[in-house]
Amino acid sequence: MSEKTPLVGILMGSDNDYEIMAESARVLKQFDIPFEMIVSSAHRTPERTAKYVSEARDRGIRVLIAGAGAAAHLAGVVAAETTLPVLAVPIDATSLQGLDALLAMVQMPAGIPVATMAIGPAGARNAGIFAAQILGTADADMADRLRTFKQDMAAGVVKKSDKVQQKLAADGLA
Amino acid sequence: MSEKTPLVGILMGSDNDYEIMAESARVLKQFDIPFEMIVSSAHRTPERTAKYVSEARDRGIRVLIAGAGAAAHLAGVVAAETTLPVLAVPIDATSLQGLDALLAMVQMPAGIPVATMAIGPAGARNAGIFAAQILGTADADMADRLRTFKQDMAAGVVKKSDKVQQKLAADGLA
Amino acid sequence: MSEKTPLVGILMGSDNDYEIMAESARVLKQFDIPFEMIVSSAHRTPERTAKYVSEARDRGIRVLIAGAGAAAHLAGVVAAETTLPVLAVPIDATSLQGLDALLAMVQMPAGIPVATMAIGPAGARNAGIFAAQILGTADADMADRLRTFKQDMAAGVVKKSDKVQQKLAADGLA
Amino acid sequence: MSEKTPLVGILMGSDNDYEIMAESARVLKQFDIPFEMIVSSAHRTPERTAKYVSEARDRGIRVLIAGAGAAAHLAGVVAAETTLPVLAVPIDATSLQGLDALLAMVQMPAGIPVATMAIGPAGARNAGIFAAQILGTADADMADRLRTFKQDMAAGVVKKSDKVQQKLAADGLA
Amino acid sequence: MSEKTPLVGILMGSDNDYEIMAESARVLKQFDIPFEMIVSSAHRTPERTAKYVSEARDRGIRVLIAGAGAAAHLAGVVAAETTLPVLAVPIDATSLQGLDALLAMVQMPAGIPVATMAIGPAGARNAGIFAAQILGTADADMADRLRTFKQDMAAGVVKKSDKVQQKLAADGLA
Amino acid sequence: MSEKTPLVGILMGSDNDYEIMAESARVLKQFDIPFEMIVSSAHRTPERTAKYVSEARDRGIRVLIAGAGAAAHLAGVVAAETTLPVLAVPIDATSLQGLDALLAMVQMPAGIPVATMAIGPAGARNAGIFAAQILGTADADMADRLRTFKQDMAAGVVKKSDKVQQKLAADGLA
Amino acid sequence: MSEKTPLVGILMGSDNDYEIMAESARVLKQFDIPFEMIVSSAHRTPERTAKYVSEARDRGIRVLIAGAGAAAHLAGVVAAETTLPVLAVPIDATSLQGLDALLAMVQMPAGIPVATMAIGPAGARNAGIFAAQILGTADADMADRLRTFKQDMAAGVVKKSDKVQQKLAADGLA
Amino acid sequence: MSEKTPLVGILMGSDNDYEIMAESARVLKQFDIPFEMIVSSAHRTPERTAKYVSEARDRGIRVLIAGAGAAAHLAGVVAAETTLPVLAVPIDATSLQGLDALLAMVQMPAGIPVATMAIGPAGARNAGIFAAQILGTADADMADRLRTFKQDMAAGVVKKSDKVQQKLAADGLA
Repeated sequence: MSEKTPLVGILMGSDNDYEIMAESARVLKQFDIPFEMIVSSAHRTPERTAKYVSEARDRGIRVLIAGAGAAAHLAGVVAAETTLPVLAVPIDATSLQGLDALLAMVQMPAGIPVATMAIGPAGARNAGIFAAQILGTADADMADRLRTFKQDMAAGVVKKSDKVQQKLAADGLA
Repeated sequence: MSEKTPLVGILMGSDNDYEIMAESARVLKQFDIPFEMIVSSAHRTPERTAKYVSEARDRGIRVLIAGAGAAAHLAGVVAAETTLPVLAVPIDATSLQGLDALLAMVQMPAGIPVATMAIGPAGARNAGIFAAQILGTADADMADRLRTFKQDMAAGVVKKSDKVQQKLAADGLA
Repeated sequence: MSEKTPLVGILMGSDNDYEIMAESARVLKQFDIPFEMIVSSAHRTPERTAKYVSEARDRGIRVLIAGAGAAAHLAGVVAAETTLPVLAVPIDATSLQGLDALLAMVQMPAGIPVATMAIGPAGARNAGIFAAQILGTADADMADRLRTFKQDMAAGVVKKSDKVQQKLAADGLA
Repeated sequence: MSEKTPLVGILMGSDNDYEIMAESARVLKQFDIPFEMIVSSAHRTPERTAKYVSEARDRGIRVLIAGAGAAAHLAGVVAAETTLPVLAVPIDATSLQGLDALLAMVQMPAGIPVATMAIGPAGARNAGIFAAQILGTADADMADRLRTFKQDMAAGVVKKSDKVQQKLAADGLA
Repeated sequence: MSEKTPLVGILMGSDNDYEIMAESARVLKQFDIPFEMIVSSAHRTPERTAKYVSEARDRGIRVLIAGAGAAAHLAGVVAAETTLPVLAVPIDATSLQGLDALLAMVQMPAGIPVATMAIGPAGARNAGIFAAQILGTADADMADRLRTFKQDMAAGVVKKSDKVQQKLAADGLA
Repeated sequence: MSEKTPLVGILMGSDNDYEIMAESARVLKQFDIPFEMIVSSAHRTPERTAKYVSEARDRGIRVLIAGAGAAAHLAGVVAAETTLPVLAVPIDATSLQGLDALLAMVQMPAGIPVATMAIGPAGARNAGIFAAQILGTADADMADRLRTFKQDMAAGVVKKSDKVQQKLAADGLA
Repeated sequence: MSEKTPLVGILMGSDNDYEIMAESARVLKQFDIPFEMIVSSAHRTPERTAKYVSEARDRGIRVLIAGAGAAAHLAGVVAAETTLPVLAVPIDATSLQGLDALLAMVQMPAGIPVATMAIGPAGARNAGIFAAQILGTADADMADRLRTFKQDMAAGVVKKSDKVQQKLAADGLA
Repeated sequence: MSEKTPLVGILMGSDNDYEIMAESARVLKQFDIPFEMIVSSAHRTPERTAKYVSEARDRGIRVLIAGAGAAAHLAGVVAAETTLPVLAVPIDATSLQGLDALLAMVQMPAGIPVATMAIGPAGARNAGIFAAQILGTADADMADRLRTFKQDMAAGVVKKSDKVQQKLAADGLA
């Protein structure tokens, strides 16, 4: 957690979800965005969750990220208590491979939006980037960092293409 | 709502769900079980829902039934606030035809059980019967009424079989 | 199995399901609820199943739990023979990963309710807790134990949150 | 129902399924195979179902057809009580459009086979034809009728192709 | 479209999607947020789409909303061209009832986030509210309007609950 | 059917599929590509299908299109008999809404390719365009027509965008 | 393969399916039913498949079993060429875990029945038992063997129940 | 990559997809068809992708193959920029096991066809064969090679059948 006032709050229902949600943390750190991360459950600690979320805006939080698996109610329960944007990361935690968490997050009824990302680490990483994009709507410096980030990704693709030429040669396919 | 102290509380997220959840009400009335029915949303009125549920046991409620569609969090949110048994009725309210509500209800994580019924009116009706069965575990009279109810259903099947013979004859298939 | 008269009967279709259904047993033991556990199949031993279930109420059983995989008919077949509440635990036993068992259990037609839990061990554990909740509707002492159980779970979440802070620090993300 | 000793017994869980299952009856009549049709439920009348099925072979029945929707346990429950071949017709009776009935029928565990047909009227019709094919394994005359039936279907395709030429011309596409 | 500089750009792949996406427009108007709406296809007009999106930030746009059905690539293609936040609304436009559009939108690979809402009009409405929430992270007045909006929704639930009491009475269930 | 030697052969399993498959015919006519259309079933007329397909290349056919619903084997059976490219159009003909036909077509094992299009009329239309694209790989004039076709589609999108501005104005949203 | 004239022909599309389909062989051997097993593909060797199947009845074959994965056309292609009963075993051979094979087999259109078993080894074993049941409709001795087989299975369940008591004791749960 | 002018261009979104897409390369090499393979992403390098594709026809490319996982937009984005035939290979790259990529590829809207193959290596291999079939529509020599390829596959099936006889014998089942 950064020493500066956190701008992003990451919630997860269980510490089992840490490895996935650390992807959000990593990308926020890369963008130099202060954040905090807590375990709080929609079902096991509803009061703790409601308290944390309802105080978030006044504490300076600008975006909330909620990761959960199974009947993943956390993001919806968080969104019920705030007018801050809430990002949802469905986690593959049951034999249904995250389809349960995805539908339980994305199909929010009209009135209480939750912005759902892909299932698993890709979604957690994208939640971090999306939080940066939200902050970048009112922060020109953040917008610049996002532009650089995008250019770096594009450059990475060209390098991967070179790697593929080497693999083709190694496999006798070039 | 019965004049007697309600033993069953039926919650739904929207009055759009009334026609479905009235099936629970009808069967409770048939079993002469006093009940009450309110609209309270997991997302739009989280405090109202939490207050109603957390006071339910002391008001004499023994079973809670929650009907909801889409990302159906109501039953889980209710279960988070009580140790009473919570029955869930998934409602077909989106283009995914109730599969979203079913998974959002049935896949509750360990620790906070929700007892899920079938999607739609069959599930609402069964929630009412199941509430009677719960009460019947400690009420010999209710157990008797359930036995009679079961015998009546069996008798109904025989009558339906007679009807099928008539249809076969009418269709020239007998 | 407890020496006291069992209040809960756990059925499973095969001893392959023991590891999953032992989760129900563990939680019942934790709540000090006497139970028994038998293997009986809807398809291989229909008479045995019918006999066990139809005598259950008179033997003092108050709740039945049925765990099964594949075309999981056991809970429905059990519910056909009793007016006791029947809890269903779908088991991931085929390449369809428990979706088959879930639908075969939860989509019971109107008239014969089955209360379905999540697929797998989480569902088995919740079936045990839900049985305690049913007994707790008429047993103030059980209701107290459930309240304590809930408070312990909430306390556990706070501890998990502390662990996450340590992991963040260890990963250089704090 | 034919006056001759029935060779095929058709069971359905509810008279609501009559229109679908009449497709089996029609094709059996076309093949001149005596049959009978009854309503009997796996859940509402388990004893009636068990009695009918366990006496079927001695009454001369050679094949059983079971049609059911939702958590469709009927075919499995029938197969539990007999060593006759049991054909299953999943019926689209819920918002899940027959996928529930299909999985509840086709995913039978090893030891108790059920032969599942397509969902709905096509499946009911094919169950009738398949019953004729079973009888045709030991009845040369039935085998001949099946061969003629197949040739008639092939001839029908050629006529349909002619119709398509007319439609193309009518639509200005020829 | 408002006369003021638009802050939100709504894109849809076809004018068939207008009725759905007008839900976003209505809620933006209600929040007094200037917006614009254009038809531009990921597949039929890739250059038009790329040009519109790449110029959006400089024209003052702060949030983009993309609605599409079938293999819904529009939101991903939009996100590829900008660092603004992109909200996705999956539309039920094929026999697969929006599941295709949902998966084609939500499962974005790491690096290019798209924030997916529910399938259909509920999702379109929530995209509008979520856009307001993004703007509200840096606009105290918008945050106030969101708080009022939330309170009005809660009040609406209480009125719906009153309506249900009247329906219960009318149905003889009170 | 064109008077010129057909270059494309369209097969369907039943004349019920004509309305869908006429979409292929319309687009082929628009591209001035001679075609023929026949009904032939993988299951009802296997010899007819095999004969038609195995003679197709020598008769001048360059591309085959097969439309079918349910357990849609037609495209695979066609591909088994030829080395011509085979395009598959899954048709929504059962309660499973074309998912059965899609999987039965697209999941061809290695060695026998079938090129699958979208379910329903969009897929049938695209099969016609794709046939033109195949012919366009060796026919510069066809390639030109495809370029014009693509430009016309793009121009259509701009017109649809104008229509949306009018609708916004009519709805008081502009 | 038995030295006696085979009564059952088992087909599979690839020798990769041998381990699964050997389950059919094992149970046929147990019932002392002569069988043969060949690899023949619907797509790679359509003529070989058609020839084998069309001669099967005259060679004494009474039942055909077809196992296949992916877009599993084999059973349907076999059924197209014969009036013998065809049993289908869907095999989990792709990332879709047998759902593709299941739908490609079970959703046969009206007129050409295929009797589908469960996905994988359970289905293969049941296909063997079902073949015995078909033969048992005209063979009293086979019917007796089936009755004994069923009784043995029931006895096995009781033994498994004893094992569960031991496991409970070992786990400190008895 | 061949030294001759490539006729087929293979694109993939990431070098992670190389092992799958090398199956296309292998079969093209076997057919002696010059090809090239590049990494280019629909989302990370939209301009690179558009540039490569829009120049492809003039560089002599006749067929494009695009492999991608997750929300697999690559094939659609490629098809948007060319009138060459585009083959799509869905890759199993997320917890949804390729169903997301399949639907994101196959459900293309009318006007922009994409020819989808099976998920994974079988689909990649078939894309290579299908490219050969497209070239074979205007190249008699390629058509001959395809015929030989097909005959070799058929011969392989007979050998596999012999292997199965040996396995049966080894397992004591012959």
